[in-house]
Amino acid sequence: MNKISEQSKAIQDLKFKIQNLPIGIFDSGVGGLTVYRALHNRLPNEHFIYLGDTARVPYGTKSLATVERYAIENSQFLALRGIKLLVVACNTASALALPKIREKIDVDIVGVIGPGAREAVKITKEKGIPKIGVIATEATVQSRAYSEAIRKVSEKAEIIETPCPLFVSLAEENWTQEPETYSIAKKYLQKIVDAKVDALVLGCTHYPILRGVIQQTVGENVTLIDSGQATAEEVNKLLNEKDLANPQKVKGERRLGDDLDHFYVTDAAERFARVAERFLGVKPAKLEAIEVFGFDELKN
Amino acid sequence: MNKISEQSKAIQDLKFKIQNLPIGIFDSGVGGLTVYRALHNRLPNEHFIYLGDTARVPYGTKSLATVERYAIENSQFLALRGIKLLVVACNTASALALPKIREKIDVDIVGVIGPGAREAVKITKEKGIPKIGVIATEATVQSRAYSEAIRKVSEKAEIIETPCPLFVSLAEENWTQEPETYSIAKKYLQKIVDAKVDALVLGCTHYPILRGVIQQTVGENVTLIDSGQATAEEVNKLLNEKDLANPQKVKGERRLGDDLDHFYVTDAAERFARVAERFLGVKPAKLEAIEVFGFDELKN
Repeated sequence: MNKISEQSKAIQDLKFKIQNLPIGIFDSGVGGLTVYRALHNRLPNEHFIYLGDTARVPYGTKSLATVERYAIENSQFLALRGIKLLVVACNTASALALPKIREKIDVDIVGVIGPGAREAVKITKEKGIPKIGVIATEATVQSRAYSEAIRKVSEKAEIIETPCPLFVSLAEENWTQEPETYSIAKKYLQKIVDAKVDALVLGCTHYPILRGVIQQTVGENVTLIDSGQATAEEVNKLLNEKDLANPQKVKGERRLGDDLDHFYVTDAAERFARVAERFLGVKPAKLEAIEVFGFDELKN
Repeated sequence: MNKISEQSKAIQDLKFKIQNLPIGIFDSGVGGLTVYRALHNRLPNEHFIYLGDTARVPYGTKSLATVERYAIENSQFLALRGIKLLVVACNTASALALPKIREKIDVDIVGVIGPGAREAVKITKEKGIPKIGVIATEATVQSRAYSEAIRKVSEKAEIIETPCPLFVSLAEENWTQEPETYSIAKKYLQKIVDAKVDALVLGCTHYPILRGVIQQTVGENVTLIDSGQATAEEVNKLLNEKDLANPQKVKGERRLGDDLDHFYVTDAAERFARVAERFLGVKPAKLEAIEVFGFDELKN
């Protein structure tokens, strides 16, 4: 074998190795499992490492500096395990911390805000002036990240953003059918209903769990945008563009939470498994409690 | 001045110095302000340092090990500032972490579980077999700390414990009058109503904010026990027994959140101030955002 073919083989091997790496996903807790579900279903040949920062959940009521710090620690934890791509499944972390994570981590990073915003504009593009609603946590709404991302692709869009703080607890309690949930949704979404939006972005990973209630409240004419699904589409595109997709077909059938995917939580694995079952339909096969704190001590 | 009178003066000075120290209070967030309010009203000559661990709130869904770690870090932060007594205002931390805090901190420590439990038994003591309800976070209920504390003073008491997870968000949203809150309370408290309890312990610092709804749901015959108020009584007793009460009368009138009391939060001071206003009626005069993490690094 000559030098050149040796080198091309080495490059091929390396490429293959990278293509075989998992995709990292982190979220403040269990909500990002809706993003994992979308990714897993869209990309059956990929395997995933999921980190839920259950020791410090929720992020949606916390400050920029704190969300940045937590997001960096989570990203470092995943990067140190070897990943080919990082998905920031948490809307709050996507809204607040992407630039800081990019400073620290040297892999491609996809947040959920951009894909959700672009999908909302895409599906409303036949309207003269699209009206887009966004519901999210307090921190995400305050950051105006969705508004900025939407305006980047549609300058004239009308955007109505509103926080729905109780939705997170309601989703975690699995109150998806209770009359109280409908009543609370009616209150929170009144502004959205009055504005007669064309599309509504579910800007928090917990909200797809309450999809039924939300759809019924805003009416069938409003298209709900699940940022997780939009993110899975963009990840698929990026993997192909960058030649990072795993070329090996997984033998047999994949299912959510199977042992090709590895789940880490920073606390209370038992509670995570219980809530994960509500979100995925099954308990993850590989679930481990770890610590992500104190990476900054590595510097000392 | 002879040796002996010199020494007694030195002792007197030292005692005076200790009596002048503030009382430390920590909570997972803003909820402990209901305990601060009770302490402040009961002990107008004392001043307080309050720490709300808003960067890591809530504790009620987290594990024993994590709650212990957070509680120790908070206690160390307060102890390093000089306090004569530590009040663990958080029910979850009181239920799970008192023994570990006692290992690390060398001042008297009062949690909210014991005082709440004793008060419940005291006010039901004329009943043959007192029936006591306890509502709290998931972690506190799972710990059975209230049941154990009640049994210590009344072996035969019947105890019904139940978690009310949505109450925390409802209190922070200030939904104290909304029909949804009444409806959710009816669901959560059905077991308590069916059991015909004599007293109901509000075993989470957020719950006194929903006192009106809770009282109406369980009926006027049930005495609600605010653990914060019971704790203030026990702290008063302890200060007198140990000669730790501040003998100096504060000049002028005290008010909640005045500049004799110092408030620290680990994150999002603005949001804390906003919610504090709902809990206290005023914003605290002295409010500062700090970090409590990494005290263990001091060991290195």
